[in-house]
Amino acid sequence: MYVKHLQCISCGKEYPATPQQLTCSECGPDGILDVIYDYSQIQKVFTKENLAINRDHSIWRYMPLLPIDPNVKRPSLRVGGTPIYYAKKLGKAIGVEKLYLKDDGLNPTGSLKDRASSIAVVKAVEAGAKIVACSSTGNAASSLAGNVASLNEYDLKACIFVPERAPAGKIAQLLIYGAIVISVEGSYEDAFNLSAAAIEKYGWYNRNAAINPYLVEGKKTVAFEICEQLNWEAPDWAVFSVGDGCTIAGAYKGFYDLYQLGMIDKIPKLIGVQAEGCAPLTRAWETGEPWQKTEENTLADSIAVGSPRNPEKALNAVRKSQGMMVNVSDEEILKMQTFIGRHTGVFGEPAGVTGFAGLKKLIDEKKISPEDSYVVVITGNGLKDIANARKAAGEPVRIAPDLEKLDQLLKEYGLIDKL
Amino acid sequence: MYVKHLQCISCGKEYPATPQQLTCSECGPDGILDVIYDYSQIQKVFTKENLAINRDHSIWRYMPLLPIDPNVKRPSLRVGGTPIYYAKKLGKAIGVEKLYLKDDGLNPTGSLKDRASSIAVVKAVEAGAKIVACSSTGNAASSLAGNVASLNEYDLKACIFVPERAPAGKIAQLLIYGAIVISVEGSYEDAFNLSAAAIEKYGWYNRNAAINPYLVEGKKTVAFEICEQLNWEAPDWAVFSVGDGCTIAGAYKGFYDLYQLGMIDKIPKLIGVQAEGCAPLTRAWETGEPWQKTEENTLADSIAVGSPRNPEKALNAVRKSQGMMVNVSDEEILKMQTFIGRHTGVFGEPAGVTGFAGLKKLIDEKKISPEDSYVVVITGNGLKDIANARKAAGEPVRIAPDLEKLDQLLKEYGLIDKL
Repeated sequence: MYVKHLQCISCGKEYPATPQQLTCSECGPDGILDVIYDYSQIQKVFTKENLAINRDHSIWRYMPLLPIDPNVKRPSLRVGGTPIYYAKKLGKAIGVEKLYLKDDGLNPTGSLKDRASSIAVVKAVEAGAKIVACSSTGNAASSLAGNVASLNEYDLKACIFVPERAPAGKIAQLLIYGAIVISVEGSYEDAFNLSAAAIEKYGWYNRNAAINPYLVEGKKTVAFEICEQLNWEAPDWAVFSVGDGCTIAGAYKGFYDLYQLGMIDKIPKLIGVQAEGCAPLTRAWETGEPWQKTEENTLADSIAVGSPRNPEKALNAVRKSQGMMVNVSDEEILKMQTFIGRHTGVFGEPAGVTGFAGLKKLIDEKKISPEDSYVVVITGNGLKDIANARKAAGEPVRIAPDLEKLDQLLKEYGLIDKL
Repeated sequence: MYVKHLQCISCGKEYPATPQQLTCSECGPDGILDVIYDYSQIQKVFTKENLAINRDHSIWRYMPLLPIDPNVKRPSLRVGGTPIYYAKKLGKAIGVEKLYLKDDGLNPTGSLKDRASSIAVVKAVEAGAKIVACSSTGNAASSLAGNVASLNEYDLKACIFVPERAPAGKIAQLLIYGAIVISVEGSYEDAFNLSAAAIEKYGWYNRNAAINPYLVEGKKTVAFEICEQLNWEAPDWAVFSVGDGCTIAGAYKGFYDLYQLGMIDKIPKLIGVQAEGCAPLTRAWETGEPWQKTEENTLADSIAVGSPRNPEKALNAVRKSQGMMVNVSDEEILKMQTFIGRHTGVFGEPAGVTGFAGLKKLIDEKKISPEDSYVVVITGNGLKDIANARKAAGEPVRIAPDLEKLDQLLKEYGLIDKL
């Protein structure tokens, strides 16, 4: 509605904003496009007052800032509107007074990726596609499958390519949603390449990876919600785990939009957190050199991305916001799962708690001030990955069914003091 | 605030509404109490207009109808405010035009039980308890643990007794939330009995089972939300899976409250659905005889309750609303997991989709009219039980990473027509 055009972030070339235009024709697959809006027109309809009386609590409440035709059929899942918590007890535990946690694991399919996939589905419908495809075993795939299934008046199929080693639990979620799931005998790269060839050959709509410029526009709604939920007082810092780089890039775009519209008085500094075993973007940020492909050596599968597909937008987000990047170990990640769980009641998957692990590390190392305000986004639900939760959580105490034994146990564990 | 007293549903005796008064002293543990409100006072503050401008989208928006002290510290998890979907495609598939699905699996710990546990935690705080305990491996336990963890300004511990055979995944969720988890060498009954003895001995607050009259008052908020989300037009029917009986009893109480207040023009007829292998309440409803203990022979673990603890309130709900009860097989339950998933994008656990399985059966058997309007509540998130989802979902198709092979496969599966 209010989209002016697409623009290449490398060469600046402009393109009409069609659903099919995904990358810059001049710069090739690395020519990432950005959606450019007409803020002066948006300002006339998009106001704090209008939002206050808007009873749609999904991402569609931000329609004027979304790159979709409002008349096109949309998935019916309620994406967005996830809760933000003032995490007083958790903040106290790390010495930060103004700490907020946004639990995006409460999106319909369990992750922030729903924000991107719902937009992808609308673009596929706009494009008149019959099949939308991607290669993934993770949150992108399940959110695509779920959002496709929830379309009521348009016959679209999700086709997901997975490597044969994909965990059965994640496959189950895809099949439940009725996606066509093609298990490719080979590596993730084999699955990716086959999906790319099929998309090319059959003309399917492409939800593969970060280059689709419309997906970031869905992800940016997390920034809108943060600001609106904090009564338009932008936090000093916003913290995200980083894999492909799309989520932090989306958050930046969201804060940028609101800043351009005069709805917040600053863009929060962005902290991007990667896993030590897979940190190409942190390395690029630290050295100023171009990013280089790395191993994918972390249990936080949702951010195990050795070749990030949105490196420039992600690094721009951190640099332009005067933010920072940091790495954490898998041990720190697992430890933070229980740490966050017991201080907040929020259960994040490993990649979902990685942002907080980075925040804690930076606070511990005195690289950021405990006086500032922080919003940490939990990007995925812990129920998605029970195997790692078990590693994190340890074992319960075992006893015989005998009250004296229980009494003894409670004393041993110092619990008797609490009685 | 507006609670007059507690009243025994058997003998009618009244009690002051203290946190500790859980059952009727005269009738013993079977003397289930009901919370009685002063509707004439509530009417003055609880109006559709006030709700329309209330920006709290959790269950606390219904404070005048909740049996808690509004000044007592509450868990900070956002319980309630789950989405309701007009399930057009799903309805079409079973021949019902007015079908709505409420996805309560999107509560913070993944089930409707959060509505009860959040109230239990407030009552524990009101009672000045240091420990709140229950015996369960399921949703009641995880919701209790999560809600306790989210208390910011009161030091409460959850103590959960589980039988040693409890699935490791569910144990992990409890430990992540920091609950004291005591694995009892023995059966579920051994764990239950030890918890009861400990609660008695140490004076812990009791979230055990359905007899606590305040828990139903939390569950009733699902009925409030249904009516409010449907613009105060109560559906003809509301459908729930039934184990202990507390959820359907809670729903009835919620509709009853609104009807007493003149906010809806009828109480929906309630359909209770049990699993064939564990259906003591359906049998009691069919025969008019008292319920009898049965085997617990179903994979829908959340409703595998051979000795329901709230039989009277549940049967009252079905009878007084002129509703009905029906059983479904485990096969039907598993089949409905994928059926719902692919028609709506909602992924329910087995007990979570049991209600819909019952609705479909009653429609197929022409026992209810396809012209009526139906709300089905999905009571728990499918991610809680991936093992059964795998049984339901089947296997993906496998191929070599080769475009010709893919072409062939798409033709074989008739998918090529869609291209």
